Amino acid sequence: VSAALSCPDTAYLVVVAPADQLDATASLVQRAASPRGVPVDVVTGGIERGDSVLAGVRAVPPGVEIVLVHDAARAFAPPELFGEVAAAVRAGHPAVVPGEPVVDTIKAVDAAGLVTGTPDRRSLRAIQTPQGFQRPVLVAAHEHGSSATDDAALVERLGLPVLVVAGRPEAFKVTTSEDLHRAERLVAAGAG
Amino acid sequence: VSAALSCPDTAYLVVVAPADQLDATASLVQRAASPRGVPVDVVTGGIERGDSVLAGVRAVPPGVEIVLVHDAARAFAPPELFGEVAAAVRAGHPAVVPGEPVVDTIKAVDAAGLVTGTPDRRSLRAIQTPQGFQRPVLVAAHEHGSSATDDAALVERLGLPVLVVAGRPEAFKVTTSEDLHRAERLVAAGAG
Repeated sequence: VSAALSCPDTAYLVVVAPADQLDATASLVQRAASPRGVPVDVVTGGIERGDSVLAGVRAVPPGVEIVLVHDAARAFAPPELFGEVAAAVRAGHPAVVPGEPVVDTIKAVDAAGLVTGTPDRRSLRAIQTPQGFQRPVLVAAHEHGSSATDDAALVERLGLPVLVVAGRPEAFKVTTSEDLHRAERLVAAGAG
Repeated sequence: VSAALSCPDTAYLVVVAPADQLDATASLVQRAASPRGVPVDVVTGGIERGDSVLAGVRAVPPGVEIVLVHDAARAFAPPELFGEVAAAVRAGHPAVVPGEPVVDTIKAVDAAGLVTGTPDRRSLRAIQTPQGFQRPVLVAAHEHGSSATDDAALVERLGLPVLVVAGRPEAFKVTTSEDLHRAERLVAAGAG
């Protein structure tokens, strides 16, 4: 939240939270936002991830034409990354996502665990958030698409181009206890 | 090296090292191996990764029919993983690699950074080492194939099946300073 608020391009911030955590989230977010003068809104999420994204987009006031969708689990994404993604959308790309080179070889497997393909690692990117969209593109993607773990994939299904810009190691997703160690070190170093 | 030596299936260990580090490597490896009674050999690597693998396989004595290829950068792969990979090869699979589920969405991009595809994340695995092979399969793969970052991909090009078994978080590749932090914690905890 701090990173999004610190990005000078940010005109409005919507946080989507579970219904039972709405008040707690609102007070936390207000405290972070008020010194920066960015208006914020906290809305209830839906059952599916796509419902939550749509709820968030609908709370963005008319006139805001570029929407960035960010995952709270990527709490250390730096403000510059928000700016770079927004700039690429502003330059005319309907959908822009940050991505990092992949360290491990990636293989596709079938249900029996047998390899069905090994795509060239140099062409692969591990995708992060914030992901940026021309607002109507994001809305159309979710209205046409169904459950996807990735907003950009819904845009691809519409046949629109998705641009990958350089990601950041700090924009990793906090999922394992190992990630928590890393997060603690980043907090101790003043990030987040 | 300790993990490979600790696996009760290990009959012979070959370490491939750069020519100018042969003596230093040999003394380190001998010190680790002698209490365990596993014969070891240290040989000079080649210019390409494939040359190094072939040099290593050629140093394995006749009669050893299952060969595991391991990356020194994955220094914390546990002994059980060596055993599980070897067991799957012994069960009849020509090539067996460990793999972990992928955390991030993976996209393929073209030279301009535009997305060309988003494979279903549930079917993807991030591949680790040790990778296990029926010895003739590994030799044939490298004799027919050229530069690949992944031995198993060469086996796939031969048209042979490659099985992915469950990997281990500890078998991560030490590449970034972040990984070194993690490695230090593992060493402090008695691993490696």
